[in-house]
This record gives sequence, structure tokens and C-alpha cells, in this order.
Amino acid sequence: NFANIDHHRTLRTGFPEVIWGQGKTTNQIAQIIEVMRSRSVSERESRNPVVMATRIEPEVYSELQLKIPDLKYYASARICALVPPQLEPQYHGTISIISAGTADLPVAEEAAITAELCGFGVKRLWDVGVAGIHRLLSNRHVLTEANVLIVVAGMEGALASVVAGLADCPVIAVPTSIGYGASFGGLAPLLTMLNSCAAGVGVVNIDNGFGAAILAGQILRTADKLSNSGFKQD
Amino acid sequence: NFANIDHHRTLRTGFPEVIWGQGKTTNQIAQIIEVMRSRSVSERESRNPVVMATRIEPEVYSELQLKIPDLKYYASARICALVPPQLEPQYHGTISIISAGTADLPVAEEAAITAELCGFGVKRLWDVGVAGIHRLLSNRHVLTEANVLIVVAGMEGALASVVAGLADCPVIAVPTSIGYGASFGGLAPLLTMLNSCAAGVGVVNIDNGFGAAILAGQILRTADKLSNSGFKQD
Amino acid sequence: NFANIDHHRTLRTGFPEVIWGQGKTTNQIAQIIEVMRSRSVSERESRNPVVMATRIEPEVYSELQLKIPDLKYYASARICALVPPQLEPQYHGTISIISAGTADLPVAEEAAITAELCGFGVKRLWDVGVAGIHRLLSNRHVLTEANVLIVVAGMEGALASVVAGLADCPVIAVPTSIGYGASFGGLAPLLTMLNSCAAGVGVVNIDNGFGAAILAGQILRTADKLSNSGFKQD
Amino acid sequence: NFANIDHHRTLRTGFPEVIWGQGKTTNQIAQIIEVMRSRSVSERESRNPVVMATRIEPEVYSELQLKIPDLKYYASARICALVPPQLEPQYHGTISIISAGTADLPVAEEAAITAELCGFGVKRLWDVGVAGIHRLLSNRHVLTEANVLIVVAGMEGALASVVAGLADCPVIAVPTSIGYGASFGGLAPLLTMLNSCAAGVGVVNIDNGFGAAILAGQILRTADKLSNSGFKQD
Amino acid sequence: NFANIDHHRTLRTGFPEVIWGQGKTTNQIAQIIEVMRSRSVSERESRNPVVMATRIEPEVYSELQLKIPDLKYYASARICALVPPQLEPQYHGTISIISAGTADLPVAEEAAITAELCGFGVKRLWDVGVAGIHRLLSNRHVLTEANVLIVVAGMEGALASVVAGLADCPVIAVPTSIGYGASFGGLAPLLTMLNSCAAGVGVVNIDNGFGAAILAGQILRTADKLSNSGFKQD
Amino acid sequence: NFANIDHHRTLRTGFPEVIWGQGKTTNQIAQIIEVMRSRSVSERESRNPVVMATRIEPEVYSELQLKIPDLKYYASARICALVPPQLEPQYHGTISIISAGTADLPVAEEAAITAELCGFGVKRLWDVGVAGIHRLLSNRHVLTEANVLIVVAGMEGALASVVAGLADCPVIAVPTSIGYGASFGGLAPLLTMLNSCAAGVGVVNIDNGFGAAILAGQILRTADKLSNSGFKQD
Amino acid sequence: NFANIDHHRTLRTGFPEVIWGQGKTTNQIAQIIEVMRSRSVSERESRNPVVMATRIEPEVYSELQLKIPDLKYYASARICALVPPQLEPQYHGTISIISAGTADLPVAEEAAITAELCGFGVKRLWDVGVAGIHRLLSNRHVLTEANVLIVVAGMEGALASVVAGLADCPVIAVPTSIGYGASFGGLAPLLTMLNSCAAGVGVVNIDNGFGAAILAGQILRTADKLSNSGFKQD
Amino acid sequence: NFANIDHHRTLRTGFPEVIWGQGKTTNQIAQIIEVMRSRSVSERESRNPVVMATRIEPEVYSELQLKIPDLKYYASARICALVPPQLEPQYHGTISIISAGTADLPVAEEAAITAELCGFGVKRLWDVGVAGIHRLLSNRHVLTEANVLIVVAGMEGALASVVAGLADCPVIAVPTSIGYGASFGGLAPLLTMLNSCAAGVGVVNIDNGFGAAILAGQILRTADKLSNSGFKQD
Ligand SMILES: Nc1ncnc2c1ncn2[C@@H]1O[C@H](COP(=O)(O)O)[C@@H](O)[C@H]1O
Ligand SMILES: Nc1ncnc2c1ncn2[C@@H]1O[C@H](COP(=O)(O)O)[C@@H](O)[C@H]1O
Ligand SMILES: Nc1ncnc2c1ncn2[C@@H]1O[C@H](COP(=O)(O)O)[C@@H](O)[C@H]1O
Ligand SMILES: Nc1ncnc2c1ncn2[C@@H]1O[C@H](COP(=O)(O)O)[C@@H](O)[C@H]1O
Ligand SMILES: [Mg+2]
Ligand SMILES: [Mg+2]
Ligand SMILES: [Mg+2]
Ligand SMILES: [Mg+2]
Ligand SMILES: [Mg+2]
Ligand SMILES: [Mg+2]
Ligand SMILES: [Mg+2]
Ligand SMILES: [Mg+2]
Repeated sequence: NFANIDHHRTLRTGFPEVIWGQGKTTNQIAQIIEVMRSRSVSERESRNPVVMATRIEPEVYSELQLKIPDLKYYASARICALVPPQLEPQYHGTISIISAGTADLPVAEEAAITAELCGFGVKRLWDVGVAGIHRLLSNRHVLTEANVLIVVAGMEGALASVVAGLADCPVIAVPTSIGYGASFGGLAPLLTMLNSCAAGVGVVNIDNGFGAAILAGQILRTADKLSNSGFKQD
Repeated sequence: NFANIDHHRTLRTGFPEVIWGQGKTTNQIAQIIEVMRSRSVSERESRNPVVMATRIEPEVYSELQLKIPDLKYYASARICALVPPQLEPQYHGTISIISAGTADLPVAEEAAITAELCGFGVKRLWDVGVAGIHRLLSNRHVLTEANVLIVVAGMEGALASVVAGLADCPVIAVPTSIGYGASFGGLAPLLTMLNSCAAGVGVVNIDNGFGAAILAGQILRTADKLSNSGFKQD
Repeated sequence: NFANIDHHRTLRTGFPEVIWGQGKTTNQIAQIIEVMRSRSVSERESRNPVVMATRIEPEVYSELQLKIPDLKYYASARICALVPPQLEPQYHGTISIISAGTADLPVAEEAAITAELCGFGVKRLWDVGVAGIHRLLSNRHVLTEANVLIVVAGMEGALASVVAGLADCPVIAVPTSIGYGASFGGLAPLLTMLNSCAAGVGVVNIDNGFGAAILAGQILRTADKLSNSGFKQD
Repeated sequence: NFANIDHHRTLRTGFPEVIWGQGKTTNQIAQIIEVMRSRSVSERESRNPVVMATRIEPEVYSELQLKIPDLKYYASARICALVPPQLEPQYHGTISIISAGTADLPVAEEAAITAELCGFGVKRLWDVGVAGIHRLLSNRHVLTEANVLIVVAGMEGALASVVAGLADCPVIAVPTSIGYGASFGGLAPLLTMLNSCAAGVGVVNIDNGFGAAILAGQILRTADKLSNSGFKQD
Repeated sequence: NFANIDHHRTLRTGFPEVIWGQGKTTNQIAQIIEVMRSRSVSERESRNPVVMATRIEPEVYSELQLKIPDLKYYASARICALVPPQLEPQYHGTISIISAGTADLPVAEEAAITAELCGFGVKRLWDVGVAGIHRLLSNRHVLTEANVLIVVAGMEGALASVVAGLADCPVIAVPTSIGYGASFGGLAPLLTMLNSCAAGVGVVNIDNGFGAAILAGQILRTADKLSNSGFKQD
Repeated sequence: NFANIDHHRTLRTGFPEVIWGQGKTTNQIAQIIEVMRSRSVSERESRNPVVMATRIEPEVYSELQLKIPDLKYYASARICALVPPQLEPQYHGTISIISAGTADLPVAEEAAITAELCGFGVKRLWDVGVAGIHRLLSNRHVLTEANVLIVVAGMEGALASVVAGLADCPVIAVPTSIGYGASFGGLAPLLTMLNSCAAGVGVVNIDNGFGAAILAGQILRTADKLSNSGFKQD
Repeated sequence: NFANIDHHRTLRTGFPEVIWGQGKTTNQIAQIIEVMRSRSVSERESRNPVVMATRIEPEVYSELQLKIPDLKYYASARICALVPPQLEPQYHGTISIISAGTADLPVAEEAAITAELCGFGVKRLWDVGVAGIHRLLSNRHVLTEANVLIVVAGMEGALASVVAGLADCPVIAVPTSIGYGASFGGLAPLLTMLNSCAAGVGVVNIDNGFGAAILAGQILRTADKLSNSGFKQD
Repeated sequence: NFANIDHHRTLRTGFPEVIWGQGKTTNQIAQIIEVMRSRSVSERESRNPVVMATRIEPEVYSELQLKIPDLKYYASARICALVPPQLEPQYHGTISIISAGTADLPVAEEAAITAELCGFGVKRLWDVGVAGIHRLLSNRHVLTEANVLIVVAGMEGALASVVAGLADCPVIAVPTSIGYGASFGGLAPLLTMLNSCAAGVGVVNIDNGFGAAILAGQILRTADKLSNSGFKQD
């Protein structure tokens, strides 16, 4: 059969398998969603009950919706999901997501919606690239209040280094394919972020807002677990 | 003047500036160490009092030692440091570092020593690459007990994906330049780690054990801070 | 004339020329198929009598079918062929094909259908990528029972190394172009597979399921020939 | 500890772990050799009892020899090994190794010596590149008599395609870093071999004679196993 | 103004400016053709009177034909031209063009038609790639009778080296973008041809059949000129 | 003969030919210096009378000095020159040179010394990379007072974008090869600078401090010329 | 909100924020234009009052025009703008723009229109590539009269070096993506321009006519400022 | 055995096998030279009797000379050869070799010496790069008098296009690895030459002066053959 769903993933890693919509037929996606829904019932009790798919184009969603009427679509993030009635942060802390330009929005929203669907609190700060650095500096409270930062930037991706030089928390950098010419499909900001002169930056794949959200979530879960295991007592 | 030391870095980001030994003359390194020592006295009260330099070859250390007799050298990590009398973990949690092969040791030790010098508890698991995957699977407790994982691997770097598929905490991946031919100086494991099919992997530069340690440390500091700000109370 | 068909290829190498559909007009493909059919009659007695073409899009097949009504189409593999009435394995041994994700299916099926059309027994195991490695480990019998393994994987392609570390037979690795960003059209899994820390992996071109099947078939033919030449007697 | 030797590898895959000399200190290599010797005694009964290391420069061997007097050195292959008293082929069939130029010799010999140490019969044909293709064509018996072919070529690596178009057995291609300029360290023959218009070519890493030998050996072992499992009876 | 036609090019180099159709609007192409026609009248007396454009898609030609009814189209070569009534070879010698596969036809025809329109005699040999090398070897007379050879090949491009090892005349190699995966848009055959182990190969850009024809023509013109300057007399 | 000195370059472009020391023998350099000295006498009256060579290693200078005793060496810039008795700025305006890290010094000094030897006023600001951006922000007067800015940065090269977003004058960016791993010899900062989200940045080759100085000088000369041609009068 | 307009950019850098049309929805572009119009009223007194967007395809402009009737479109430059009634040069000096081929026109016009809209005088010289170098040499007055030169070239981009060897003013080079095959989307002319053997060339991103114009404008503004600050008096 | 000398190469292609010194031991080179000498006696009657080796470093020559006293060394070309007593042009026509900079000399001399040893007349024009294009233009007679042109250039390699736009004969372009940074070991001039906007340029590998000479020689031989076959008579 075409899919071998990893039903234990939440148990092992804290996060369920998420369907990667690209390269799958609409039929395959619909079937996987329904299988995951039926299996996730018992997991509903636990955290992260969401069934979701990324990289869903509007046309694909239109077809999916016919088969799964309660499937919700987040257009700017190209994500669809079976969303539980109440969707509230279930972990402590805030993931602040900062993007460099308006065109980086779809990737930044992929990160934001993924994080929210997985039970995390998110703060957004869009279009504060270094060409006008006062836009970042006048929002330093966003950096200060964050527990994890996700920086989304295309073109040269310099925003990640600047943020990491100012931040007192982990920084996750997402290069985007926004740009042209010597951007080479996002290679330029990818290399920028990997070579950041400010340390403490973890980089994910070009346009991978989803992966950044999972890593950020993993970080907040770690805090929760460390705390629950009672380290405050010593 | 040749150096403009960033004395506020600990205040801003929680970690002091660390001297990057590569591309600097021995004289420059020695002078910067002494300036940082004189300035870090007041910071000694706070955490992270270490003055350290990475990428120090043995010959360079020999010369430095003549000028700074109390400078300590960690040969396998190519790090030298002014080490405070007692060096004990000052943060909760454990950073577990896993390496794929014996030749990855210098990078893995760079991560380990950096983390230890910065006040974090470290657990090491060396030479457990996927060619003999039972070496990893029979050590699953290392994964389970970790609060953050650093995976160091050269050649094809597949270890990072396997670990991330099993881990219930953030995974930081460090590609190394160990390999030859189509490894292209570490490009192969770098791309592997960026494209990991298991989500939640943050990648740092090729051979950048130092950066991985800082990011891991930043993650544990976040847990401490979240915990201290009292989130256990709710 | 536009084509110079290599009618001796089966004699020289054991496998007939296979039409590469990409970059040819429908007319050219149809004419080559008919010429090959007329010539392959005499070869029908011998093994491998198939006339087939790879990389045939559905639209192209629709046109071809009008001209060649008995041409069969394997949609998921994008292969069309003149299939002999009975298609049964004609060589000993099994080619097991393992794929990492659902989206790798077309390439994995290209390998499977090619092998079957050429007279080999095939076993399929789909969607067992390393993000959930238990899916592979709980199917170790597929590895154990295989005489040749084909591993098809996109994204970071780590599955090939893991399989090769467990397999007691030759492993052929097929990187796919499934992925995005720093996958660079399949470069990432290609480099992964070439740098495999587990030895004994032969790599073919990105998305080249066809070539993997021919190599696997060549391996089983070698076994047959060695055996027929009587080495069991010594 | 620095090494985690994979003592089960022969059991799992048919071939023992082989020490990769590059990137290890002489001390590390010597210690690993001795540990492997002590463990392989019991395995001596079974096939493949060799303890060997690749990528050993003459200077390294000089030092190793002082510590391990019975260690043998194959200079042209840069391999050292503890060789059992009688080293005879233990599997049926022949691995024929063909190289394009004189400068490809070290890689071709790495393949040849590895195969011989692992118990396979080897035939060598050196310096028959396509610039003078009669050198290959007048040796077609080498191709005809082979059960597996290894083609070693640098510069443009065209020899692999030509051989694969003539061979009635599996072809393993090894690109070498021999060349200059637009060879880009072996990238040119690597791409050539991956794009071979003759199908059935499995490619290994640049300069990886060792890996080619293991894959070739795996192929002959498969023939043996298939034959032993009695398929001749039907 | 948008175009600055190089009316002296025939005088300087022996060949007129040829319009590169790609990236120009249909209007621009039509206007340039008419200006060149009006200027080339006086040059008609001399050789090479052709006015031609390359890289003209069928749709573009349809529009051009409405404006310039006597414009002729060579569909397989994507060339359109104002062709003089009699088009016969005006130089001694033969340009033999050899292609590796059926899919290389458009590039090979671009070379052939360009050469014929410029006044050279052309011989074609299509689809004789090295996967079935007898197709080339049984046509060695084509090599022997050529005064210049153009070899057009995609995939791995090995044909160029094989031909150059057999040819007693200059060889011009044209890599094509035919292929997929690690062909990287023709990079693979380009590197192959640049690294040819057979010397005496001049390489042109990927898919540049036009440039190959001009270089071949320049070579035959040189022979004519040398001969006319009387070197036979000494 | 081996060199064909371009004695008219000052007349044509305002700057004399400068000897590129790399790839030349010491003898060749010495001879070219002496020829240029003899020819530049008459030019001494005009501006830019300097005879200089870049990329001169200390060992080469030691040999040169034996032959040309009045040759001066600027060690940190790897430049040697015949320096006129008084070396004072001969053009209006200031070239401010900003570098990101201590290791970028040789390139930054190549720019500074070249500019000074060519008659321009230079201001230096070293080691103000974005990891500690206050070092730049607290020196904003350097940006404000500059008429041209040269930004020298390795690693990820983000400094150029930040400066360009703040500067009211042309910015020239020089990527350096300082870094490792995914810096790929300076490719990372090169791409960063080319993709700068702040407009108005002109990029020169990796490590090309010399070229940046010439471009900066050309800009100040333009101002002088425009001013001298009387545009103040309108 | 999706956009964070940098209203201070003219104050800081002399040029307003310009809307990058690529990757934005038509709605986003329209809204940003209207916000900028409302804010730029006060700035109208000062120079550069233009509100403009680059990379606007004709279809996008058609939609924009419905919402903003007074928006003007420069089709060949793919720029739309709110143009002030009188658009005359407001700075001294001339920006001469030279292009190599007809197909480079859109990029060259992007530079020209940007410069004109920002208040600079522009001279155009199109289609004078080095294949017919007399077209450039017979227009040397364009070089002589320029205060800044912008050279736009695709294919191999050699024009930039030739111009820089002749020019007595700063040269800005714009590689274009015009070409095919080994042009690799403009990589070829980009590398050409970065490696120019004639010094004093500043390079911008592939196809970045806009950035070249801003840099050229910045250079002329510098001249104005230097002149206004009275340097003529000394 | 290590070498399989291609004794028929002169018969097949007009040029003997030439020893590529790189990657061979001194012993191997010496033995091959002596074997070729013994075999070439009979060929001495025919043209091209030379036995030669390229890429011979001075140290290697010193050792070779001890074994083969009559071996001659061309230091600037890194070529050694057994030179016949009289070495005079044996073919009509002239190969003119043009180089861009002083540092390109070794490659240019490799071309020149190879051509001379093979019996061709050579004219040299060194250091006429496009930074000072009058150096080329004032030597146009070298272009006019040439029957074949070889253009050797590093850095950006623009000289090839300029020459090809002026030349009335075939142009062979040799990119060199002279340069730094974004030259990427000669990739920059290689791409330049492949994308030349002037048609009729055949490119050889980076630093391959030898291959350029063979191709040039092949062109002059073609002229001779065409002429000898009597085409003047028609
Ligand atoms: N946008 C995304 N980017 C990267 N990985 C993803 C994304 N969405 C889902 N995934 C992961 O991709 C894998 C899906 O592989 P497949 O079997 O092809 O569906 C799962 O393990 C997901 O966790
Ligand atoms: N999917 C495929 N990938 C790679 N090679 C193929 C494929 N299908 C057929 N071929 C080979 O491509 C060659 C066809 O070249 P052509 O002359 O263009 O048809 C044949 O030699 C086939 O063996
Ligand atoms: N197919 C082609 N490939 C490469 N160059 C060409 C081709 N067709 C024409 N050319 C050349 O491209 C140049 C045209 O540049 P343009 O000014 O853009 O027309 C001319 O110098 C032609 O000689
Ligand atoms: N550091 C440098 N980087 C780039 N070009 C340089 C440098 N120094 C000198 N040049 C230029 O390189 C050319 C010298 O080429 P050559 O004939 O090899 O000496 C001259 O045109 C110089 O203007
Ligand atoms: Mg914005
Ligand atoms: Mg190991
Ligand atoms: Mg799956
Ligand atoms: Mg040889
Ligand atoms: Mg064919
Ligand atoms: Mg610093
Ligand atoms: Mg033109
Ligand atoms: Mg010079």
C-alpha cells in the first residue's frame, strides 16, 4: 500500500506525523487524513491531537473539502487541518516569529499556523528586514519577551544574524526562496544563516516554516518537561 | 585598533564573546584574551565567566602558553581557556552529544568542551553511525535521558535523521568535513541534515561544534528562565 | 533517419534497448515501438522479449494507444509496454524494492515494473523512511529474504545507509527529486547515497528507477549464469 | 571511548568492519586493529577473517609497523592488513577491474586488494581508456569472462558507459579525482557515470575503490547463496 | 534604438550576424530581418548571403511568416531564414555531424541547417551513442571522410571522447540538455567533453548547435584560405 | 616578452596599472616595477604617481627589497610600493572602510593602503560585525561623515546590508574568504552582498580590497570632476 | 500586518523605499502604493518624491490600474509609478547605460527608468556587445561624457571589462539572465564581472537594473553633497 | 602492467600519445618515455615523431634527466621531450597564441611548445588583456595573419570574445586558473568562453594549453589534407 503511517510518532517525539502535501495525489492525502483521524481519537486525550497537511495548494484544498467537509484551510500558510473545537496554547512560553519582507509571509505563516495547531502560543512581527533596521530595533520587546525566536528571511537573510546578536533565547532561522538571480532559489540566505557570526542559530531547510515550528515546539516542550521533573526544587 | 571586543554580549545573549582563533595572529589572540580577562572579573559573579578561544592549533597554543601560563588547552577540541577553579554545571538538564564516527571526534569534542566551559552538563556517545545502527539502538537511554541532543556526523550524515525520528527533545545537527570525494568538504552531510525527513532538526555550519553547543545551551537557559518565571504555578 | 535501434543489445548485455520517452515526439516513439516489435519476434524465444518505453506521460500514452491498441500502460510507473501473454519471473531470486515516502512512488514503481517486465520477481515495501524507523525494523524479513535490494528515497535519502548496514546482499540506491529547497532537485539524497558510511551501495541517477532495475536484474542474471556454469559441482 | 567497533557486521552483512584510516590518529588505528584481531579469532572459522585498514599513507604504515610487526602493507593500494596465511578465493566467480589511465592505479588497486583480502578472485586490466579504444576492444575476453566488472576512470570517465554497453554482467563504476580544471576533483567522471546512457551501472563515491570491491563481493556472495539455496534443482 | 546590427561581421569574421531569437519580441525579430535583408543585397555577391534567426519556436514563426512571406522555417532545427534560390556548398570539405540519441536531434539539426545555410556540405549520422558502440564503429567511414566532426550528445556525453580517439580531423563537441537528474541541465556532458581524455576536442555551450556550425565552418574556410594563398606551390 | 605594460591607463581611467603579484615570479615583478618607475616620471606631475604591487607575500618582498632598496612594504596589506616623499590626500572627500572581524584585516588594509597610495583620505573602523551591532550603531558618525563606504566582511557578510540601510552615500561591499565550512571560500558573503535587501551596494570579488579602493577612488574623482566642470554655478 | 513601510528611508539614505512587486499579491501592492502616496506628500517638497514598484508584469498592472487610475506603466522596464507632473533631472551629471544585446533591454530599461524617476539624467546606448566591438568604440563619446556608467550584459558579460578599461568614471555592472546552457541563469556574466581584470567595477545582482540605478544615483548625490559642502573653495 | 601505450594513435589521429605527467611516478614516466622512443623510430619517417610529457615539475625533470640524459626541458611550459635534431614547421599556416596576462604564461607556453614540438609554426602575443584593449587593437596584424588563434586568459577571460569578434579564422579558448575568489579555480573564464557572444569559439579544459595546441594542429592538418586531396583544381 502507498502509505505506512507512523502512528507512534507522538509517543516517540511528542509530535504527530504531519502530511507533506507536495508530490501526493489528492486521493492519497484524503485517505491518509481519514486514517489519521480514526487513529488519533484515542490520542485526543493527550496533547497535539491535530491532523494536518502542509503544502496544500488552493485547488487541492477545494477537492479535499468535498471529501472532508470539516477540513479547515489556512490559505496564507497553505495548510489544511482537522482542528479541535478549542485551540489554545497547551505549553508555556511564546514562539515569536519575525519575517524580513512581505513576500516571506507564506513561509512565516506556515511556521505560525503549525505552531498554533500544535498547541503553542505565537507572536508575529512581519516585514522588519535590515534595510530599515529601526523596524526591528523599535520592536526589541518582541525579542525580549520571546522564549524561542523564528526568523524567516529571503534575499540575503541578514536578519537572522542581527536578531541572534540581540536575543537571549534560541534562534531558529528559515531561509526562503524569495529573491532572484544570485539568490539561487534560497541558497544565498541559507548560506548566510549557516555562517552567522552570531552563535546559537539553528537553520532549517529553505522555505521550511513547518520544521522551524516543530523545533521551536520541541524547545518549549523541553522546558515544560525539565520543569515538571521538578528541577525548581533544588 | 584591530579588535572591538563585545563586552556586553553576556548581558544581551547570555553567552560571552568567544575568540575565533582561525585567521588571527597569536599576538592578537593573546591580547584579546587578556583584555577579556580583565573585563570579565566583574562578570565572574554572574554565570558563564569563561574566557575561551576555539580553533587553536597545538603550535599556536604552545606560543600562547608562554604569554599566558594559566591558559588551559583541550587538545582534542582545539580549545584553550582561562578556566575558573570549579567548573560545574550551572544549568539544569543534560546536553547529550552523539557522533557517527571516530574521525568526527574533534568537532564533537569542540561541542562538548564548549558546553562544559559554559556551565552545562554533557553526556557523550561516540562512534554510533548508522552503518551499525544497533550501536545507537542499544543506547536509546542516552536519547531518552537527554534534554537536548547534538548529533555530529560526516560522510552522509544520516545519523541526524535517525536520531530525530526517535528523540523527544530538540535535535541540533552538526555536519562535519570528514569524508572525501562527493562529500565536497561536508556539503553532503549538510544537505542531508537540512533535508531531514524527521522534523525538528536545527542545523549549524559544517564542523561548527561550538555553535551547536551555544544553541543547546541557549535551549537549556530558556527552560531555566521559563521555570524561574514561575510557570509551574498555574 | 532519427533512430538507430540497437537490436543486438539483448545479445550483448542481456537486456533489450528500452525507449526513453522523454524528449521524443509521440510519432518517433510509436515508430520505434513498431520496429522493435517486428524485430523482437525472433528474440521472443529467448528471455526478455519485452518492448517498453519509460517516462511516458498519460497524454502521450493516450495518443500512442490510438496507434498501437495492444500497448499497455502502467500509470504509476509512467511506463508503456507490449507485454507478452504470460509474464512470469524467468530468473531465480527476488528484487526487493523499498521506498522512503509516499511521494517516491512513481520512481519506485518505475523500478518495480521494469524489473517485472524484464522477467524478475519483485517484492515491494513502501513508505518506511527513517523518520519512523520501526516501520523498517519491523519488516526486516523483507531485507533478509531479498537477493538484491533497491532503496528509493528523496529528501535526505538516509534510508539507503540504514538498509545497507543491515543487508546481506547488494544494495542499489535511487535518489529521487522529491523534496524542496536544499534538496536541489535530488542532489541531497544523491550525495547522501554516494557517501554512505555503510559500504556496498551502488548509486544510480536521480529518479532513475529504470536503471536500478536493470542493474538489479543484471545481478540476478549473474547468479543464474554462475550457477549454470556449474559452480555448485566443485 | 573513541571507537565503538561493529563486531557483528560480518554476521549482518557478510563483510567485517574495515578501518577507514583517514582522519584517525595512528594510535587510534593501532588500537582498533588489535581489538579487531582479538575478536575476529572466533570468526576466523567463517569466511572473511581479514582485519584491514584503507587510506594508510606510507608514513602512517611505518609507525603502525613498529607496533604491529605482522601488519602487511600494499603500497599501491594504500591498504594495510593482518593477512591470514593462505589467501585464496573463497567465492565463485571473477571480479574484473578495468582502469582508464595509469594515474588511476591507486584507486583501482584499492579495489583489487580489498576484493582479494575479502576472498574474491580478481582480474586486472589497466590503462585502457577510450582515447585508444582498441585497447579495450582487443581485450573483450576480459569483459566476457567477468562475473562483475569494476570500471575505474578519472578525467571524463567515459570508459564506464562504453564497458556497460558491451557487458553481460553488473558494472560498478568508480570515478577518480584524477584530472584537473573542470574535473572539479572528480565531479566530472562522477556525473558521467551517473548519467550513463548504457543502463545497469552502479556508481560509488569518487576514489572509492574499497566500496566498489565490497559491492562486487556482495554480488558474488548473492550468486553463491542463491545457488546454495538450491535453485538449480527446479 | 533596440538593435545595433553588426553589418560588418561578414567582412571581419567571414560570417554574418545571426539573430538570436530567444528573448526578443516577434516585432523586433521581424524588423531586424528586414533591415538585414536590405543591407545584405550588396553582400549577396560575396559568400554567406543568408539572413537567419535561431531559437524560433513554431508559434513565433507563424507570426513572422505573416509579416515576411518568403521566410522559410526549418522546424526540427528551430531556425528561420531568407534562403537564396540556390543553396549549394560554397566551400570544400565536409562537416560530419554525429549525434548520440534521438532526443539530441533539435540541437544536431541546428548545427546542420546553420552549416548548410552558410554554404557548407554536411553529412548526418544520428543516434549512435556509446550504449551500442557498434553503431558508431560500423560507420567509421563517416569519421574517415569528414574534414571536421561535430559530436552532439546529452546524458553523459561520452560519444565525444570515443570519436576524438578515432578521428583524424578536428572534433567539435556540443553537450545537450537532454537527460535528467544529475545531468543538471547539460552540465554532465559539458564536463565530460571538457575533460575528454582524447585530445583535440573544442567544446561549445550546452545546446549550441549554431556555434558548433560556425566554428566548423571557420575551420573549412581556413583550409580554403590557406590553399588559395598558394601553399600548395612550395 | 612576458609583460606588456599599460602605460596609458592613468590617462584613460585615472588610475595607473597596478601589478598583481600573485602568479608572477619575483624577477618579473622587479622588472615591471623598474619599467613602470622609469615611465612614470613624467606622470609624476599629474596625480596618482604611485608604482605599486598587491598580493606580495613577506618572502617575496624580502627578495624584491634586495633589488629595489627604496621599495616600501605594508605588511598587513601585503602591498609594496615606490612611495613619493609626501603622500597626502589629493582628492576631496573621505573613504570610510568598515570591517566585520579581526580576521578581515588584511583585506580591509589592502583597500585602505591602496586608497591612500592613490591619493585619497581614509577612515578605518575595524571589527564591528553584526553579532554586536551596537559597535556599529555607536559609531554612526563614521557612516554619516563618509563620502564613500567600503564594507569588508567574511562569514555571512551581513554587515553590508545593515550599513547600506543606514548610509547616505555609495556602499562598496567586499566579501572575504574568512570563515569555514559552508562559507565555501567566501561564496556565502558574496551571495549575501549581491542579494542585499538594502539597495545601492556594489560588490567586488572575494578578498578584492584593491578593487574596492579603485572603485571608491573613481567615485571621489567623479565628484571632483563634476565640481570642476562648474556645476555649482547653476 | 503584512507590510511595515520604511517611511524614513529617504531621510536616512536619500532614496525612498521602492516596492518589489515579485512575490506580493496585487492587493498588497495596491495598498502599499496608497499608503506611500499619503505619506510622501510632505516629502514632495524634498527630492525623490516618486512612489514606484518594480517587477510588475502587464497582467498585474492591468489590475492595479483599475484601483489606481493615475498609476503609470513603463512596459519595457516592468515598472509602475505615481509620477509627478514634471519629471526633470534634479542632480548634476549623467548616468550612461550601455547594454550588450537586444535581449538585455528589460533590465537596462529597469535601470534607466528607475534613474529617471529618481531625478537623474540618463543616456542610453543599446546593443553594443563585444561581438562587434566597433559599435562600442565608435561611441566612445558616450563613455567620455558619462559621470557614472552602468553596463548591462548577459551571455558572457565581457562588455563590462572592456568598458571599465576605457572609462574615467565608476562602472556598475549588471549581469543578466539572458543566455542559456552554461550561462546557468546569469551565473556566467556574474562571475565575469566579479573577476574583471579592469579594476573599479561594482557588481549588482543578476537582472538587478533597479539596484544599479540606485547605486549610480548615490554616486551622483555624493558629488552634489561634496560640492555643496564647499570643497571648491580650497 | 601499469601502462598500455597507444602506439597507433598517430596513425589514427595524426598525433602521438603524449604523456600526462601529473599523477604518475617518475619511474613510470621514465619507462613510458623509453618504450615510446623505441617504438617511434619507425614513425620518425612520418611527421610528428616527438616523444613528450606535459605537467612535469622542475624536481621531476631533475630526476628524469639522470635517467634520460638527452631529455630536454621547457621550464616555462613544464614540458619535457625527446626533440629531433631539426625542429621546423612541417605544416602550412600559423598558430597565433594570445594571452591576457603575465600570469597566464605557463599555460600559453604549454600550448606554444606543444604546437612547435608537433611541427607547427607559432606566433606569440603575451599580456594583451582587455583592461588595456589598445594592446590588442594595435596588434591586429597578429589576428589577421593567423590561420588559427589560441586565446589564453584567466580572471574573467573576456579576451576570447573580443578576439572572436575580430578574427577571420577559428578561435580556440583556454581558460586558466589564474585569479582568486569568485574565479573558483578557473570556472569564471571557462563559463565566459562557453557563453561567448561572438560565435565560433571552441573551448578546452581550464589550463589545458596542450589540448588547445592539438586542436589547432588538427585544424592546420585538415587544411593540408583538403589541399593535398586536390581541391584547388576545381
Ligand atoms: N512542509 C514540510 N516540510 C518538510 N517536511 C514535512 C513537511 N510537512 C510534513 N513533513 C514531514 O515529511 C514526512 C512525510 O513524508 P511522506 O511519507 O512523503 O508523507 C513526515 O515525516 C512529516 O513529518
Ligand atoms: N528512464 C530511463 N533513464 C535512463 N536511461 C533510459 C531510461 N529509459 C531508457 N533509457 C536508456 O536511454 C537510451 C535511449 O537513448 P535514445 O537513443 O535517446 O532513445 C537507451 O540506451 C536506454 O537504454
Ligand atoms: N543559437 C545561438 N547561440 C548562441 N549565440 C547565438 C545564437 N544565435 C545567434 N547568436 C549570436 O548571438 C548574438 C546576438 O545577440 P543579440 O544582440 O541579443 O541579438 C549574435 O552575435 C549572434 O552571432
Ligand atoms: N589585488 C588585485 N585584484 C584584482 N586585480 C588586480 C589586483 N592587483 C592588480 N590588479 C589588476 O590586475 C591586472 C594585472 O594583470 P597582469 O598582467 O597579470 O599583471 C592589472 O590590470 C591590475 O589593474
Ligand atoms: Mg517590506
Ligand atoms: Mg567507527
Ligand atoms: Mg510517509
Ligand atoms: Mg595511458
Ligand atoms: Mg537511441
Ligand atoms: Mg571581533
Ligand atoms: Mg544584437
Ligand atoms: Mg599585465
